[in-house]
Parts: sequence; structure tokens; C-alpha cells
Amino acid sequence: REERITLAHGAGGKATHTLIEAVFLESFRNPMLEPLEDGAVADGLAFTTDSFVVTPLFFPGGDIGDLAVNGTVNDLAMCGARPRYLSAGFILEEGFPVADLRRIAASMAQAARTAGVWIVTGDTKVVQRGKADGCYVTTSGVGTLERPVRLSAAAARPGDAVLVSGPIGEHGITVMLARGELDIEADLRSDTAPLNALTDLLLDACEDGAVRCLRDATRGGVATIVNEIAGASQVAVVLDEDAVPVRPAVRGACELLGIDPLYVACEGRMVAVVAGEFADAALAALRSHPLGSEAAIIGRINDDPPGLVLLRTSFGGTRIVDLLVGDPLPRIC
Amino acid sequence: REERITLAHGAGGKATHTLIEAVFLESFRNPMLEPLEDGAVADGLAFTTDSFVVTPLFFPGGDIGDLAVNGTVNDLAMCGARPRYLSAGFILEEGFPVADLRRIAASMAQAARTAGVWIVTGDTKVVQRGKADGCYVTTSGVGTLERPVRLSAAAARPGDAVLVSGPIGEHGITVMLARGELDIEADLRSDTAPLNALTDLLLDACEDGAVRCLRDATRGGVATIVNEIAGASQVAVVLDEDAVPVRPAVRGACELLGIDPLYVACEGRMVAVVAGEFADAALAALRSHPLGSEAAIIGRINDDPPGLVLLRTSFGGTRIVDLLVGDPLPRIC
Ligand SMILES: Nc1ncnc2c1ncn2[C@@H]1O[C@H](COP(=O)(O)OP(=O)(O)OP(=O)(O)O)[C@@H](O)[C@H]1O
Ligand SMILES: Nc1ncnc2c1ncn2[C@@H]1O[C@H](COP(=O)(O)OP(=O)(O)OP(=O)(O)O)[C@@H](O)[C@H]1O
Ligand SMILES: [Mg+2]
Ligand SMILES: [Mg+2]
Ligand SMILES: [Mg+2]
Ligand SMILES: [Mg+2]
Ligand SMILES: [Mg+2]
Ligand SMILES: [Mg+2]
Repeated sequence: REERITLAHGAGGKATHTLIEAVFLESFRNPMLEPLEDGAVADGLAFTTDSFVVTPLFFPGGDIGDLAVNGTVNDLAMCGARPRYLSAGFILEEGFPVADLRRIAASMAQAARTAGVWIVTGDTKVVQRGKADGCYVTTSGVGTLERPVRLSAAAARPGDAVLVSGPIGEHGITVMLARGELDIEADLRSDTAPLNALTDLLLDACEDGAVRCLRDATRGGVATIVNEIAGASQVAVVLDEDAVPVRPAVRGACELLGIDPLYVACEGRMVAVVAGEFADAALAALRSHPLGSEAAIIGRINDDPPGLVLLRTSFGGTRIVDLLVGDPLPRIC
Repeated sequence: REERITLAHGAGGKATHTLIEAVFLESFRNPMLEPLEDGAVADGLAFTTDSFVVTPLFFPGGDIGDLAVNGTVNDLAMCGARPRYLSAGFILEEGFPVADLRRIAASMAQAARTAGVWIVTGDTKVVQRGKADGCYVTTSGVGTLERPVRLSAAAARPGDAVLVSGPIGEHGITVMLARGELDIEADLRSDTAPLNALTDLLLDACEDGAVRCLRDATRGGVATIVNEIAGASQVAVVLDEDAVPVRPAVRGACELLGIDPLYVACEGRMVAVVAGEFADAALAALRSHPLGSEAAIIGRINDDPPGLVLLRTSFGGTRIVDLLVGDPLPRIC
């Protein structure tokens, strides 16, 4: 047992999972929380929450405001729900410029319009100077389940295909570079975007039950998500490294930083596990939308070895891809 | 226009209202947010959120955990809803003791059990040492509207009675004293408590429509709440100072601090506006529950002067009670 919270507990990988299971699930346990999916589902509703502590607050391609709206919209969409109502809780630092707050609120309003949701309730607290890095935002969301879906990380089966909706890692790398602490220049923008239009297209294109699982590849990146799926479904996820879309600027920055793009957070990309016979239809559906134009089939589900993720590397080898350990890129969402 | 956020923007009074209307309502405007009630209501659901940044995290009578659960349960109850599902977003400070986190989670779980709700989804972020005062918690909640009520701060009418469910100001004073910065000793505990059992008893005791408005008297205290009601309903609220229950320890501390107990936050007390002919039934209903055993009728609604709160003082005079200005007791929730 670790005795103190570390940054790794917030990175979405192994330490986060352990903390959530040992402390939160242990205390709160109930059948809606237990599956630890992107949102909780019951009574025809989906319900989810995320806090955002990104620094800097403004970065190429977005800011904490649209990030917070899109993040919660996406967790609802991953449940197969139609995102409807959002809440917005602000923790503001004394001295924070009201002009910046207006910019963030405007960006949230715009993101809400784009995603087709309303921000219907909120809260505003202020903490002393030096706390809260200017502004933390917590969004929660309620969606309505209007499709007969039962999406679950535990639903992947051998023969299924694994898709990603676009190039990975842009959000995490963009935010890191925006801090200006690294001597790396790259022409990159965050991928923050609402995915509900994409999930609608995907679910429409496949017959009921063919879409097994949807997950937005946020903290911990694609590698962490597919590990969760492998573990929950007790299957092997076999990824083809060459098939994973990564923009050259992301690949270059990752090489300089010594990290694997598979672990870098996206905020507008999802992983979908789809029955093998619907893989092509799913791919076409994703590609029919601008946000999915670079979607790809990146792997498949095998029965063996259960619980593991294997990567067929560009060099023809195979290696195990584990849960994220530590926190290579802190505070990116 | 103020250019920077001040602690007063978080105090729940005049500055908070101005900020919410000028920035958040202005950006997010929609019919569900517009009334600025304790929660948003539509489709048979109520939805609300609050962030908690109290310091210290543990205080006599409670901690940030039960405070966060009760606060969101209460905002749902004030909508006339049955509180059902809660989310819990944690922003943790690097170095925070896991033992304290366990204590907070256990206290949330206990509060959820008491209120009859489930914590079904959550999020965990970590920020660098020196930020976040150990732990901030944001709870959101979904409730179901199972009664034909239309509670609103705009629904008070001349002839209505104003009730409070118990002695006021204990939470705010307790937290201030728990900081140990003031040279005041008092035997006080926070009043943090779930009010949904009380609202059920109250609504059962009155005929449909007789309960006009319910509000938990949190930041800004009873004075701020009744100002909101006076403004939204365009009526006068006339309070009788002698009728307002205040424990001697709270009164004493308030005198030493030079503040009026009417402005001090409670976290387990509500104001109810009820049709005059149901005042006694409402009072009896509240008093039938341990949390309402000291409930009182503290005033009535007049038509004139619209939008104002008048206090008939113990000395026989009358004075205007305005919205809270500034922040006499920061960071108490
Ligand atoms: N403090 C918490 N209390 C209760 N449940 C939690 C808590 N933190 C996380 N969870 C639950 O654990 C699971 C994983 O949470 P996580 O935040 O990693 O998912 P996510 O929101 O999809 O990812 P991200 O936060 O990176 O966008 C979810 O089911 C979530 O509800
Ligand atoms: N940042 C925000 N964005 C949108 N709406 C907000 C925001 N902050 C507050 N509101 C809305 O303003 C109204 C008043 O909020 P406030 O937090 O003062 O109410 P409360 O939760 O009942 O009080 P407390 O927070 O003291 O418990 C509510 O309708 C709330 O939804
Ligand atoms: Mg997610
Ligand atoms: Mg998320
Ligand atoms: Mg609030
Ligand atoms: Mg309230
Ligand atoms: Mg509240
Ligand atoms: Mg999350």
C-alpha cells in the first residue's frame, strides 16, 4: 500500500486503477459503479463526470473549457447514450482574470452547441491565490439511452476487430509542448472534439450487438484502454504497430521525449471493438465523418493469452504492451 | 466590471450572483439554467452540482466527504426530487495521505447510505504539491421528480409563511473555529445533514402547490436565500429576528466576529416558503423529524416593498437585510 498520493495516481494507468479499486470502489461499491466504464448506466440514462486540471489553460486547438465539455460528452457517447445535459463546476483562483474566465465560458458554450448539449447547472468556488492554477473545471453529464446497446469493456470476443477513430497522441503532446519547458517545436493541435456524431454513425452502421465496446482514449492513451478491455473481457488484444495512425510531429516529439505514442492521451479519439464481420462497415462509417477520416483497424481480439495486449512491431517482433506505469506527461487534462 | 476574481465571488452573495449572471448565464443561457434554482429540472429529472473546497478537510461534525454528499443531496431535495445517483470528482494534491482519502471516501459512502443514494461514477486527478489544499471534491447528482411540484424562488406570494428547519449558522462558524486562527472556543458541530427526509415530510403534509419554494441555506446563509426569493418573486420577505433560531454558541461567536448569523452558511438547514394556511402543518411536519426538531416560522411574505427583505429586530425596529457583500467566512464549503 502506498501511503501518499503521487502524480501517477492521476495519470490514468496502473496507479490510478489501483487507487480507484482500493479506495473508491471499495467504499462506494454498487452495481452501477462496479463495471468502471466511462459512465454509469441505469433507468435509460447514462451519467458521468470528469475534473479538468490541465495546464496551461489555453493551448493550440483548444482550452480547458472545450476540453471539459468534450470530455464529458465523449464519456456519455462511449456508453452509447445521447449526451443531453451538462453541469459545470468551477474552482477559481483568487486573482484569476475575469477575461480568461469569459473566454473559457464562451469556449464551453461553443463546444456545447457543437455537441448538441445544454449546460444546465453549475457551481462557482474561489480558493486563495496560489491554489488551483487559475481554474479547475468539473463537468458532469447526463445522457439518454435511445439505442438497445450494452457496450462494455467486458464484451470483446475472439474474432472482433479493434479500431481507432484517428491519429493518436495529439492532445497530450500539444499540451506538453504548450508549456514551453521542452525544447521541441512541432506544428500540432489538440484533437479535443465531441465524438457523439461518430458513435451515432458507427452504431447505425452495425447490427445490434456488433459494437462490443467504445472507449475514448484519454489518460493512459490507447495502450491503457486496450489493456482494460483485455482484462475485463479476458481476451488477448493483438495490435499491429504499423496500422496505428500517428502523425509525424507526434512521432517525432515522442521519440525526443522517449515515450510511446500508444500511451499518450487523446481527447477526441476513441477505440471501438466491433464484431469481425462488421469491421469494414464500422471503418467506413467512421471515415464518412471528418473527425474519423483517418480511422483505422489497428488490431484484433484473440482468445490467447487472456488479459494481455500484444503488439506486432514494425520490425516483425511481438511485445507485451502493459498498463501505463508512472506519469510521463502530467496534467494534460 | 471587476477584472479579477476575488474571494467574494465564491461567497454566494452579491458578487457571486453578478459573476454567474454576467459570465456563466450569459454564455450558457438556456431555459433549464435560466431560473438559477438549486438544480435544473426537465424530463422528470433534477440535476445539480457543487464543488467543495473547505478547509480544514475534517471539522467537528463532519468532513469534506459527507459535506459533498449532503450538499448535492440537498440541492436535489430542494427541487422536490428524490435524490438517486451521485458522481464524485476528486482533485488531489500530490503528497496527500491515502489514509485521509480513505477516511473521506468512507464518510461519503456513509452519507450516501444515510441519504439513500448511490455514488455511481467518479474521476480522480492529481495536481502538484502546494495546490488543491489536499483535496477538492465535486459532487453532481441526479434525482427523479416523483411529485407534481413546481418549486421556484419566483413562486412566493403575499400571505405565505417563511420557515427555517433548524438553528442557523452552525456549519460556517464550526469550520471557521476549526481553523484555530481565531481565539474563540465554542462547543459547536457542523449541521451537515441530508434534508431529503425532511422535504418528503413537508411535501406530504401540504396540499399540492402549497409549498412554493425550498432552498438550502448554504453560502450567504438565510439572509441571501430570502433575498433571492424576494427578488425572484417580487415580494417583500419580512423576518422576525426573535423567531430565527440561533444557538447561543453561534450567537456568541458571531458577536465576537462582528457578523450577523443570518449570513452564516448552514449545510443541513433549509428555508421553506409555504402557503399561509399550511404554515402550522408544515412546521409540525418539520418538527416531527430529528433534523427539524427546532424548526420555526421566521417570517412572512408581503407584497410591499417588492424585492426587499425586512427584519423586525429584537428592539422593535425594522431594517433592510441585503444580499451578502464580501466574504466574512471564506472557504467554509
Ligand atoms: N473518485 C472516484 N470515485 C468513484 N469512481 C471513480 C473515481 N475515479 C474514477 N472512478 C471510476 O473509475 C473508472 C475510470 O475512471 P477514469 O476517470 O479513468 O475514466 P475516464 O473518465 O473514461 O478517463 P479520463 O478521466 O481520462 O477521461 C470510471 O468508471 C469512473 O467512474
Ligand atoms: N459556473 C456556473 N455555471 C453555470 N451555472 C452556475 C455556475 N455557478 C453557479 N451556477 C448556477 O447559479 C445558481 C446558484 O448557484 P449556487 O452554487 O450559489 O447555488 P447552490 O448550490 O444552491 O449554493 P451552494 O453552492 O452554496 O451550495 C444555480 O442555479 C447554479 O446552477
Ligand atoms: Mg472515458
Ligand atoms: Mg473521461
Ligand atoms: Mg452551488
Ligand atoms: Mg442550494
Ligand atoms: Mg448547493
Ligand atoms: Mg475520468
